Amino acid sequence: MDLYSGYINKLIDELAGLPGIGSKSAQRLAFHIINMPKAKVEKLARTMTEAKEHVRYCEECYTLTDSEKCPICANDRRDHSVIMVVENTRDLAAYEKTGKYEGVYHVLHGAISPMLGIGPNDIKLKELMHRLTGDVKEVIIATNSSLEGETTAMYIGKLIKPTGVKVTRIASGVPVGGDLEYIDEVTLLRALEGRVEM
Amino acid sequence: MDLYSGYINKLIDELAGLPGIGSKSAQRLAFHIINMPKAKVEKLARTMTEAKEHVRYCEECYTLTDSEKCPICANDRRDHSVIMVVENTRDLAAYEKTGKYEGVYHVLHGAISPMLGIGPNDIKLKELMHRLTGDVKEVIIATNSSLEGETTAMYIGKLIKPTGVKVTRIASGVPVGGDLEYIDEVTLLRALEGRVEM
Ligand SMILES: [Zn+2]
Ligand SMILES: [Zn+2]
Repeated sequence: MDLYSGYINKLIDELAGLPGIGSKSAQRLAFHIINMPKAKVEKLARTMTEAKEHVRYCEECYTLTDSEKCPICANDRRDHSVIMVVENTRDLAAYEKTGKYEGVYHVLHGAISPMLGIGPNDIKLKELMHRLTGDVKEVIIATNSSLEGETTAMYIGKLIKPTGVKVTRIASGVPVGGDLEYIDEVTLLRALEGRVEM
Repeated sequence: MDLYSGYINKLIDELAGLPGIGSKSAQRLAFHIINMPKAKVEKLARTMTEAKEHVRYCEECYTLTDSEKCPICANDRRDHSVIMVVENTRDLAAYEKTGKYEGVYHVLHGAISPMLGIGPNDIKLKELMHRLTGDVKEVIIATNSSLEGETTAMYIGKLIKPTGVKVTRIASGVPVGGDLEYIDEVTLLRALEGRVEM
């Protein structure tokens, strides 16, 4: 039997399709949303569609932003000759929160994974290589220390070495298998300081 | 510094305002939504506003539904002379999933809580008393076994007794402090079978 109503069920289904939201939380969220004032629900819905509409890749580092260049790439006081390569915008945010890194970033939007069929052409790697034609002194590879992250780091290292640009990997102070965004700032900083040439 | 973009930050803030969603999950969700195809984001947003627009209280039992009467109240094969009182629509769903309860429901949309300033007039209690003027043989109180749920049960019991309608409380087989919607069906059924007159 259709326990709730078609509208509630549809909402529960949609919410349960989001990452990290099980069927119990989807139910809770759905009822919470239905009990919210109408104006608030409309605002939430509008914020979603507006974000989707306006957010795009930074033309330089490919992080998500709403202008042509992200605030970091547009900042002249950042060192544009040092590029830290991360898997996604959340990892960028994690390093940025340390407040100690003065270079710029490059966001791959993924990692190489033969298991998942994700190859070098499925991440923003061509775009990284293209940036190296400019005035770049060092590329710091800060992909996760997961299997995919390490594979990606090795692949990028081999690709960059022939260009003569210095390429380093953040130190293995980052716990193996750990996801950068869940690691405390001190560990992140120590890993950055202890980085080694690849 | 504004790490992401205004649109992303707004979305993260909105999502973090939902129950059970911390700031990390809000970030994950926001980026997931931004990476979803535009049509899917629009569908999610539309589903929310439509649910909010169309869902209302059943005119009889006050559960959330999208027609005047919910499918349970509209069903002639249910026993309309037995009313199970629950705190919310999710608890109704939990009992309904056992498939063994043949009466109807009454959804209070809350519980009495002096601590939170929620009194008898803040839940659908008048509405329950109004239903007793009809042909009702038994009211089964199935509020949670939390302090608020017990307070509410006692209050309702005292209110109904003078009317002569039989009023029962589901057995304490439900673990103390437990939330009905997280309890397995067997326990729920046992609690229903073992209900005692109040
Ligand atoms: Zn950028
Ligand atoms: Zn109903």
